[in-house]
Amino acid sequence: MGAIILNGKEVASQWEKKNSLRVQNLKAKGVNICLAVARFNDDEASKVYVRKKVAMCEKLGIKPILIEEEGLDQEKIENRVSSLNKDKEINGIIVQLPLPKGIDKERVLSLVSPEKDVDGLNVFSCGLLYKNMPGLRPCTPSGIIHLLKEYKIDLVGKRAVILGRSQLVGLPIFLMLLHENATPTIVHSKTKDLKNICKEADILIVATGRAKMVNREYVKEGAVVVDVGISRIEGKIVGDVDFEDVFDVAGYLTPVPGGVGPLTIMSLMENVINAASIQAGIKDDAF
Amino acid sequence: MGAIILNGKEVASQWEKKNSLRVQNLKAKGVNICLAVARFNDDEASKVYVRKKVAMCEKLGIKPILIEEEGLDQEKIENRVSSLNKDKEINGIIVQLPLPKGIDKERVLSLVSPEKDVDGLNVFSCGLLYKNMPGLRPCTPSGIIHLLKEYKIDLVGKRAVILGRSQLVGLPIFLMLLHENATPTIVHSKTKDLKNICKEADILIVATGRAKMVNREYVKEGAVVVDVGISRIEGKIVGDVDFEDVFDVAGYLTPVPGGVGPLTIMSLMENVINAASIQAGIKDDAF
Repeated sequence: MGAIILNGKEVASQWEKKNSLRVQNLKAKGVNICLAVARFNDDEASKVYVRKKVAMCEKLGIKPILIEEEGLDQEKIENRVSSLNKDKEINGIIVQLPLPKGIDKERVLSLVSPEKDVDGLNVFSCGLLYKNMPGLRPCTPSGIIHLLKEYKIDLVGKRAVILGRSQLVGLPIFLMLLHENATPTIVHSKTKDLKNICKEADILIVATGRAKMVNREYVKEGAVVVDVGISRIEGKIVGDVDFEDVFDVAGYLTPVPGGVGPLTIMSLMENVINAASIQAGIKDDAF
Repeated sequence: MGAIILNGKEVASQWEKKNSLRVQNLKAKGVNICLAVARFNDDEASKVYVRKKVAMCEKLGIKPILIEEEGLDQEKIENRVSSLNKDKEINGIIVQLPLPKGIDKERVLSLVSPEKDVDGLNVFSCGLLYKNMPGLRPCTPSGIIHLLKEYKIDLVGKRAVILGRSQLVGLPIFLMLLHENATPTIVHSKTKDLKNICKEADILIVATGRAKMVNREYVKEGAVVVDVGISRIEGKIVGDVDFEDVFDVAGYLTPVPGGVGPLTIMSLMENVINAASIQAGIKDDAF
């Protein structure tokens, strides 16, 4: 016996088919979708990520525009983003994070209008999430909700504990779980008695960025454990959860790799398709 | 023995002096502050509230503009709010809630620009709160934080449980407590085992709107209990907490009336003063 594996790769593959179909349907209605991916940093991981996003666009029939410019100052970055935002051909814009040191991230993100903010990270998009109003949502937490729903995991009334309070994962998944009628708690580095609070969780979302931090002592028997972490230890990719140790305690468990990762990019693709269909005024199944 | 009473009335009275001084200082620098209060509903409680706000403005030396118009449709309400928003004399705008039935609240609130959104309720203001960026915050939760700080109640790492998830109180106080490094949980009508979760709280914020709902069974020995409720039972004003029953269990307790209530209006006044000083480009002690 052991946990049921939440197979993100398989779920993403089904989701990809659905997204691909939507792209074709929109094309048949004359809507050609275009995503701009802008990298201004010189970060190696970012280079890999932007290429993955571009490749997935191509696979789905979405036109990617890749902007890779390093060494720009605040003003030039703002100009680039503003002109992408004005371009009517472009339905969605990603500004790959992190931005270079000294660049005001929020000012740059604020130049992407909410309709094109497919990363769901600017102030207005976050406000829409907070209020549970229609809008583009951050990709990783959307992917997690999608995964839990695919496995028909009941969220209503359940205690959810979120380890980590980042804007990319912790904060938005908190709100999404609350909007799904779960009972969420955020724990973080300042939390006292962290282990025991995690152990109260029916659903434990781990996004600390600390490799293998969460072992069986953090996990209630039968809990759903979602591991958002990704680190490399001695050439091996591992998550924030000690998979082997937690495997026979958890009821459900995401592997790393092949858990949350593949869903994030598919969630992004869905955002791009939603953005395009809304901009075209077509009610396909966006929102 | 019994709980230490968190005397909101007294704290508000000190805060009023501080606010009054800021108004005078700004006046000396040529900044005259003006708040527009608009009531479009025919709600009796709202009539009382708007008058209280106007009276407090007058007391502090802030010029109030009171707009009371009932029976307007969506378009007319939007026109009124837009013209208040354009008016450069006006530093802050309150649209008294609830709006009449059939009126799209979010559309109306979105017409108040974030710099004048002294209720802190529109999408952008909520996004700023979410991201912990400078901005105007909802008044009741700001008042609660002010009260806890005045009593030097340590929030860092503490378990905070918020009963209720409204946009006026539950959601924003959750984020504010998180930003203060507490460990917050939101519980609500769908939560299982609600009583026991409340009993884990070092800080219990009760905002359910259900009179005397929370008795000693919900409260950990020594906990800080903040009662946001206000109901009238047989002519007597009571909160969501059964004060007498909780009194000798809690470590700190707000009374009703005289607890959170007086702080909400003072928090609003602070928002108006902050808005005016920022609009004038004066660094007094806003933010």
